[in-house]
Amino acid sequence: MPTLTCVSCGKTYPLATGLRCSCCNEPLEIRYESLKPPARIKDEPCFITRNANIFPWSDLRPELSLGEGATPLLEAPNLQQETGLNFLYLKNETANPTWSFKDRGTALGVQAAVRFGLRAIGTVSSGNMAASIAAYAARAGLAAYIFVQENMPAVKIEPIAIYNPCLYRGIGDYGQLYFNALRWGEKHGIYFISSDNPFRVEGQKTVAFEILDQLNYQQLDYIIMPVSSGGNMAGVIKAVEEMEKMGLIKTAPQVIGVQAEGCCPIYKAAAEGKDQIEHFGQPNTIARAISNPIPPSGNRILRKVQQGRARIVAVSEKEILAAQSFLAHQEGLFVQPAGAVPVAAIRKLAREGSLKPSDKIAAILTGSGLKDTSVLAQHRLKFNQVPVDKLEQALC
Amino acid sequence: MPTLTCVSCGKTYPLATGLRCSCCNEPLEIRYESLKPPARIKDEPCFITRNANIFPWSDLRPELSLGEGATPLLEAPNLQQETGLNFLYLKNETANPTWSFKDRGTALGVQAAVRFGLRAIGTVSSGNMAASIAAYAARAGLAAYIFVQENMPAVKIEPIAIYNPCLYRGIGDYGQLYFNALRWGEKHGIYFISSDNPFRVEGQKTVAFEILDQLNYQQLDYIIMPVSSGGNMAGVIKAVEEMEKMGLIKTAPQVIGVQAEGCCPIYKAAAEGKDQIEHFGQPNTIARAISNPIPPSGNRILRKVQQGRARIVAVSEKEILAAQSFLAHQEGLFVQPAGAVPVAAIRKLAREGSLKPSDKIAAILTGSGLKDTSVLAQHRLKFNQVPVDKLEQALC
Repeated sequence: MPTLTCVSCGKTYPLATGLRCSCCNEPLEIRYESLKPPARIKDEPCFITRNANIFPWSDLRPELSLGEGATPLLEAPNLQQETGLNFLYLKNETANPTWSFKDRGTALGVQAAVRFGLRAIGTVSSGNMAASIAAYAARAGLAAYIFVQENMPAVKIEPIAIYNPCLYRGIGDYGQLYFNALRWGEKHGIYFISSDNPFRVEGQKTVAFEILDQLNYQQLDYIIMPVSSGGNMAGVIKAVEEMEKMGLIKTAPQVIGVQAEGCCPIYKAAAEGKDQIEHFGQPNTIARAISNPIPPSGNRILRKVQQGRARIVAVSEKEILAAQSFLAHQEGLFVQPAGAVPVAAIRKLAREGSLKPSDKIAAILTGSGLKDTSVLAQHRLKFNQVPVDKLEQALC
Repeated sequence: MPTLTCVSCGKTYPLATGLRCSCCNEPLEIRYESLKPPARIKDEPCFITRNANIFPWSDLRPELSLGEGATPLLEAPNLQQETGLNFLYLKNETANPTWSFKDRGTALGVQAAVRFGLRAIGTVSSGNMAASIAAYAARAGLAAYIFVQENMPAVKIEPIAIYNPCLYRGIGDYGQLYFNALRWGEKHGIYFISSDNPFRVEGQKTVAFEILDQLNYQQLDYIIMPVSSGGNMAGVIKAVEEMEKMGLIKTAPQVIGVQAEGCCPIYKAAAEGKDQIEHFGQPNTIARAISNPIPPSGNRILRKVQQGRARIVAVSEKEILAAQSFLAHQEGLFVQPAGAVPVAAIRKLAREGSLKPSDKIAAILTGSGLKDTSVLAQHRLKFNQVPVDKLEQALC
């Protein structure tokens, strides 16, 4: 039987709703006695069925799936040309059912909730996770409890509220809400599928399995992705380690996590050689989807950095905006600012020489540009205002 | 060699940039001497390569693809329960690279432009088509000319402008712009990949091929989809006829096109037994993506209705809003109003008894709900404003 195991002290727990170790308050992760490779994308279209071998249960309910996963892996010819990198793929996670990577984790989290007999799931989020939780709860016939900040504008709340969750704007100290929510959840039977919930992490790990599947398990040097709370990145590191263990690949690629300089607690701790995350203070970045100032899986990522499995870089606001623009202008891909940070990092690392032309790289683009259109005002977007009868002369 | 053939008089033209018949001004479509089935999704992940057999050229450039197609086909358990229909699938076209069905047609249109040696593509659109054209042009290194209406708000323009097209707000008679644009396009080498461009239609037809592939070519009674200009629906009808001709299916499913009552020129002409579309007048519907008052492929659809290949229904604003809500609340799928009209029609036709429990049905959900969030104000979306320290008591 798989167990829940503390990622720090190794204490084990049965497979249940526990989220963190009672001894060291670090996250729990699912460990398996033995693992078999997932089915190939070409052989099994359903996410749930395809990944049964790398999930803790094999008898899941495919009808709760919304068709997540099997997202496109595209070459990036124009980015390759600019950076001189010869082997560079982009994993487009905006093609998921709620247009972000979160759907992979929610898809398994909702299975866990149903399995544990819970009638409600929840999250504290104002973005991708909230929409994903609300959508999958709707599909599964569960209640969804979503806590958002009091100042969240209607334009961001409504696309979550349309799925009909119980939606609360919490007036007051939102920071405290995360921890209170977990406590209330336990008391009232609401399963909080937060960013580093062990089942969410198992769902998130599928993105790395898919990238390698799509590349026919050829050797890859780096997977580059955004990192905020650390749950998604922990899932990707877990995936490449599992693939190495199973012999699907010879050597696990290093996972490069990218933060915004305006909120980079993991980068800061790693750069200073610390083994504990400190509160970053007030986040200040357009990449709002990755602005967790005190990442709950931060220490876990730091340990992976120390082991050489991972590396963290930080990019500036200017670099993020430029990467968002480059992706749309040159590759035809419109991602939210957080989704553009891996490309900002690739451009920077290639310029500095830390990525070599022969390196084999895949980057994960996490969420759709339609998720946060307010940032677009910061690009100086061109358009022409022309009387219809003068249009022909105006054609540039 | 495939030809361009007038859908009305049958006059043939060589495979080139012509869009309409010089005799009768009806659209041209691509006809083949012989056809072979496309590859199966499981055997070939790339849209361009997979569909080469059903496209006019087999030596296309896969690197211009953005990973369109192979979108999820999902059962709709809650909609089935409500309507009593036993076999009902939803094709989620919001999982395309620019989050709408248009990407299929643009993907082939851009190949045609490159093949014909043109340096620019264009469209007159304020929505899904504009974003799709701008994105694929960016990928292919072509210029894109996008004409939008003068009163289009920044929140709708910016997600198109981010791909860096030449974007023009035409001040004055926008209705005339469509025809002027085609003329200027010919003169200045801009290839307008409008809604019923013959190559776009060939790209659009792939959605029906995919639905049948995903259902292992079992018999289907109806494909239900939105219809506006008629190009996409013409593609789907063409696809089911081609599948019948090739023996992939025994009998082509009937294609049911759905319009909003607030703009239903094809429905009106069909109901009145006419064989020519008339201008509908001022559109008045929340389903803005399907509000073409004078559909350029309308007559072509009418002929298919007369042949029994197709049928047109209209739904009310209230039914559209209710369907959008139902899809999000019950199935976890958030689509734009135009994307919800097939579900509005299914509920209506099931209620009226025109769809029987044993009918086998697939519906096409054309575009993401994030494309038009202004309509959300019309749903009375619930959320609670609660002080953080009172939140626990407030949990419903």
